[in-house]
Amino acid sequence: MSLSEFSLIENYFSKLTSARQDVSLGIGDDCALLQCPSGKEMAVSIDTLVEGVHFFADVSPKALGYKSLAVNLSDLAAMGAEPAWFTLALTLPEHKPDWLRAFTEGLSLAAKPANIQLVGGDTTRGPLTISIQVHGLIDKRRALRRDGANIGDRIYVTGTLGDAGAALKRRLENWSPEVFEETDWQYLQQRLEYPTPRYQLGQQILDYASSAIDISDGLLADLGHILERSHKGAVINPAQLPLSASLKKLPQEICLPLAMGSGDDYELCFTVPAEHADKLEQFDLNIHCIGEITAEKGLRLVDETGKEMNIDARKGYDHFGT
Amino acid sequence: MSLSEFSLIENYFSKLTSARQDVSLGIGDDCALLQCPSGKEMAVSIDTLVEGVHFFADVSPKALGYKSLAVNLSDLAAMGAEPAWFTLALTLPEHKPDWLRAFTEGLSLAAKPANIQLVGGDTTRGPLTISIQVHGLIDKRRALRRDGANIGDRIYVTGTLGDAGAALKRRLENWSPEVFEETDWQYLQQRLEYPTPRYQLGQQILDYASSAIDISDGLLADLGHILERSHKGAVINPAQLPLSASLKKLPQEICLPLAMGSGDDYELCFTVPAEHADKLEQFDLNIHCIGEITAEKGLRLVDETGKEMNIDARKGYDHFGT
Repeated sequence: MSLSEFSLIENYFSKLTSARQDVSLGIGDDCALLQCPSGKEMAVSIDTLVEGVHFFADVSPKALGYKSLAVNLSDLAAMGAEPAWFTLALTLPEHKPDWLRAFTEGLSLAAKPANIQLVGGDTTRGPLTISIQVHGLIDKRRALRRDGANIGDRIYVTGTLGDAGAALKRRLENWSPEVFEETDWQYLQQRLEYPTPRYQLGQQILDYASSAIDISDGLLADLGHILERSHKGAVINPAQLPLSASLKKLPQEICLPLAMGSGDDYELCFTVPAEHADKLEQFDLNIHCIGEITAEKGLRLVDETGKEMNIDARKGYDHFGT
Repeated sequence: MSLSEFSLIENYFSKLTSARQDVSLGIGDDCALLQCPSGKEMAVSIDTLVEGVHFFADVSPKALGYKSLAVNLSDLAAMGAEPAWFTLALTLPEHKPDWLRAFTEGLSLAAKPANIQLVGGDTTRGPLTISIQVHGLIDKRRALRRDGANIGDRIYVTGTLGDAGAALKRRLENWSPEVFEETDWQYLQQRLEYPTPRYQLGQQILDYASSAIDISDGLLADLGHILERSHKGAVINPAQLPLSASLKKLPQEICLPLAMGSGDDYELCFTVPAEHADKLEQFDLNIHCIGEITAEKGLRLVDETGKEMNIDARKGYDHFGT
């Protein structure tokens, strides 16, 4: 372990975020000591990002720091948990204080609005790898799980879909549709590098939703996890998928597979019993009903008239050209 | 994430360990859900092991799995916490089911006696890296910290010191003292690959100890952390360091620096107020008093007569020959 590197992160970080009352002992001992309020349980998730697998070697360290924490916060969002604490295991090929400072700045950018505190970590020498574990708090037995969807529940997603996938497609395939202007690319790149974890919304839907997941692998894949765990099927109307102004510039046969098959948006997909849905829609939540849970297994795509559509979106963004 | 690899670990693992009552939701959702009993707080630590830095490329996967968890359990031991849950972030260069099975077997070997449950994880493709985060439970405000040592406290260590360092020295320097037989090497290698985390003892000394740390970087370095945090000094009698029968075969000028300077033993070093020490020594705990906390800063080595000794052990095992 390199104390100096972790100290650098810690020192820089402590200036950028506030200390929580429920941390009895923070960084600097063999363990951190944390207090979980009675009546609450703890939601825990760990995610690793590896250079060349989850991010490009030339990614800005600030964006990397931000996204490393944001994708974990997204897991807390999917349970409806309130962010509380996180730890960081950082493996670095060399000591670069400027890189570390920018990385920490990005981390803080995600941490500060979430009121989540860095409570421990480990810095090691080796190929660039980032493991973050997040801890959130939630009232006992109230967490949103993947296995709670019921027949007739409406299916919702937050924000817009396919944006991050479009930015990734440009990078991987040198894709450059004529309709896109520089401002479109800026927006899409921002969506890829700085996704917005929906932990506030996750907590807001707790009283209404029956199941939830965050969209990291693509809508169809992740909704598929809900269906599998809940032993149900679903029908989706692709025309109702929320698309950004940039993505709407594309023809449907390009943008719909992106919206359904590409990951990295880190929006939420969740189900709501019909009797709760009307109430939920009265709030100003930026959520969109895209379909319904069915008894019949599998996932069908239908248009407004009920006609089955045949868009091969399961294969995702990397299987079709412009 | 490769579901198949993590599923393999999970499936194999669940057969080898039992499920805890305080796990509301285990592996398979966005987060695990864990219950911390009221009156307890949670001790949390994360450690990363990187191939070529923390272990040799040819290490047996079973030993690697064992040690990855054992070194984290040792952090819980140092706080006096009871092991409860852990997560695993595993980055692997390729899919090798046999390797994974052996690795998981080693993990279980450490997990089962500790009654610690695997509650989440992530498997990614990349250079072999293992991050484990452990969670332990401890009564509020009772954890052993590094900053509690007081003047006159006796200093104790568990087990024997320098064994793992000797095995490492053989590997790094082709070191082969004539006095060692094959059984000595087997013992020393076992100590390096399968260290015994002292979490039971950590809980047993809670009523008596004023501070504690685990010895991962060497006695002098780790005791140094206690002294630094507690703003105290210490005097140690090297003749009182507990040595294994194998290490005792070596002349003092070889074995003492190993016992004081080499890491990887994962024994505990802790301090006990004199009024508690006699009581503690009545139990059969395999602990050894090696010195005393002093007002005078720094760490001095003295023999039985009080004469200062001049063994340059701070430089550790890799600076002297046979």
